[in-house]
Amino acid sequence: MAVNLPLPLAENLKPVAGVELGWAEAGVRKANRKDVLVVRVAQGSTVAGVFTRNRFCAAPVQVCREHLAAGKGIRAIVVNTGNANAGTGEPGLANARATCDALAAQLGIAPEQVLPFSTGVILEPLPVDRITAALPAAIANAKPDNWLAAAESIMTTDTQPKAASRTVQIGGKTVTLSGISKGAGMIRPNMATMLGFVATDATVSQDVLQALVSYAADHSFNSITIDGDTSTNDSFVLIASGKAGAPAIERAEGADFEALRAALTDLSQELAQMIVRDGEGATKLMTIQVEGGKDVAECRLIAYAVAHSPLVKTAFYASDPNLGRILAAVGYAGVDDLDVERVNLWLDDVLVARDGGRNPEYREEDGQRVMKQAEITVRIALGRGDAAATVWTCDLSHDYVSINADYRS
Amino acid sequence: MAVNLPLPLAENLKPVAGVELGWAEAGVRKANRKDVLVVRVAQGSTVAGVFTRNRFCAAPVQVCREHLAAGKGIRAIVVNTGNANAGTGEPGLANARATCDALAAQLGIAPEQVLPFSTGVILEPLPVDRITAALPAAIANAKPDNWLAAAESIMTTDTQPKAASRTVQIGGKTVTLSGISKGAGMIRPNMATMLGFVATDATVSQDVLQALVSYAADHSFNSITIDGDTSTNDSFVLIASGKAGAPAIERAEGADFEALRAALTDLSQELAQMIVRDGEGATKLMTIQVEGGKDVAECRLIAYAVAHSPLVKTAFYASDPNLGRILAAVGYAGVDDLDVERVNLWLDDVLVARDGGRNPEYREEDGQRVMKQAEITVRIALGRGDAAATVWTCDLSHDYVSINADYRS
Repeated sequence: MAVNLPLPLAENLKPVAGVELGWAEAGVRKANRKDVLVVRVAQGSTVAGVFTRNRFCAAPVQVCREHLAAGKGIRAIVVNTGNANAGTGEPGLANARATCDALAAQLGIAPEQVLPFSTGVILEPLPVDRITAALPAAIANAKPDNWLAAAESIMTTDTQPKAASRTVQIGGKTVTLSGISKGAGMIRPNMATMLGFVATDATVSQDVLQALVSYAADHSFNSITIDGDTSTNDSFVLIASGKAGAPAIERAEGADFEALRAALTDLSQELAQMIVRDGEGATKLMTIQVEGGKDVAECRLIAYAVAHSPLVKTAFYASDPNLGRILAAVGYAGVDDLDVERVNLWLDDVLVARDGGRNPEYREEDGQRVMKQAEITVRIALGRGDAAATVWTCDLSHDYVSINADYRS
Repeated sequence: MAVNLPLPLAENLKPVAGVELGWAEAGVRKANRKDVLVVRVAQGSTVAGVFTRNRFCAAPVQVCREHLAAGKGIRAIVVNTGNANAGTGEPGLANARATCDALAAQLGIAPEQVLPFSTGVILEPLPVDRITAALPAAIANAKPDNWLAAAESIMTTDTQPKAASRTVQIGGKTVTLSGISKGAGMIRPNMATMLGFVATDATVSQDVLQALVSYAADHSFNSITIDGDTSTNDSFVLIASGKAGAPAIERAEGADFEALRAALTDLSQELAQMIVRDGEGATKLMTIQVEGGKDVAECRLIAYAVAHSPLVKTAFYASDPNLGRILAAVGYAGVDDLDVERVNLWLDDVLVARDGGRNPEYREEDGQRVMKQAEITVRIALGRGDAAATVWTCDLSHDYVSINADYRS
């Protein structure tokens, strides 16, 4: 079940000049499903990424870091689902490199110009032969208007493909951004989401692109959580092909930079929220806004404590305004000098707790009314500063347990 | 459903000279259930406690700290279930004090000689009149052999009462320890459990008693988690009546101190594990042992990351050896310089991962065999030092969701 997540329509997804996408059915884990994606990137594009901070980062993430550092210019991306190639040691690294080698040979580029990505079960050997055997088919059907099929080809427990586009004016030219994302469980990104790819035909220098991808990740994928489990494979990649003919953006300032950053952040937030809306078993989308903090870090600490509390998440699932559970999570979040007598709590427009205690005017039926909605904003004011942070999450339902008790079967 | 948790038998619970327990049905939240407990403590006893570090600590916890600091000698304890008296601001404090005043008046002691405790729903006004009205009945039936009824009277979502006893020889005298605990959800104690009370007839000075209660809490209640939610009301209290006639223990060293500490820690671990065995919806008890760490703190960080991961907990519920989820949790626990290539993972006696990757000799059927057990040890060796830590937890089942979606109804 997904929360207000309409199916993306192919005609709403805009091609990005210089970027072609092709898929194949490799049978990595299951037959007859799109499970390999190849993205071809025009020569002269810049590519930047952010990756998981999980110490058990997957083999492909390690290879991505190496290949980006090599600086030869990225020309292709290859993604497989069904197997994360994580917790696989040296053989896993060899398999990730073998995938790059095979794609590079077929495209006539260097292996260091390929970025590999994997998502799926951890701790199992990657069936690299099945993946490389499927590459010719993916290359053959690569085309610029394949964004919807590309989104489908990276799904695992997702119930729907996730894709969106934006346009923005840069120096009188229309610049396009299109992106896809996937993920529904093991979602508490720390640097990036499970997998997110955004391409634009803007012209952006490498260091500015890195600044853009970090900023967008922090304000989107790095502000969502489903189950608090930071994946071994989180990756968010931004491609700039330069094919729009717009002025080059070579400094992280100015109107063009800010326009592109705003469009990218907006697109990334939509893609990130799609992941939460499709969270495993999700029936509600909760926006946790913490304000009045001393710094952003403490606001995020409290927002995540609330977002991760199984008791809070099950109360939302039940539409039960058992809102003391939210205060309990605020209290144990780890802000040791928090003065609870200054804390206010709203559920949408309903003031539930004032000065750390129950608001005398609060009526249970008002809380009940908000709790029944599919989308709810929890606003927590700390009364100790000007900082704020927002985290998006979903509820914890019976279906979450069913999905994760059955995932491999 | 509880995991290997036999009903305690009244005849196995030993009276502690100087301590009498009595219960009543006050109808705090529901009619016809034991929901008030009064414990009378002989004059000259020492009493020490540790309490929640949740910033939204409940009104009774604040009053307990005040009354212990007053140093007048604690003579009575009063507990109610059905309402936590937390998130209740100044009226909550007044209600906690009113409860102490009423009990003190009836027992002819000072209000500062009473410790109040509450457990139940947060953010709702305490029905103090119903509690004070029930005190005479509780006082009237107070007697030394009432430990089982006392355990029953502090239950909330617990499916079974939790109580146990120990004896130990101190200076040729038999010293008895008996204790009770409660809790099944909102369990991730930080200083102490939801509610735990242990009494002994040993003679122990106040500062040694404080050292004992802290040590025992750290090695028992502070090493369990069910859902990661640190309660607003966690309290663990130790009473020493001195009625056994054993030599006084006035220094935190020596054979007598160590014998008492060992018996107390053993009893506290049994009471704490009872809480996990009765965890909301629990079908499995998992012991998470992390060893080979640089310090205990990092071992605990990793053990709790594994114990809190919803993906790990649902895999255990399903008896699915999807063990990469454990490595993912180790990797995101926050030990930034962890060398994953030195990490080994066992499930009971089965070596699943060696040097950070899948053990080549590991067979899925071996993992499956262990996963089907009701009690499972997860052992994680970090290979970077000599420190170790153990955390006990349970799985995440459909029933956890059902219980917490229905708790208030």
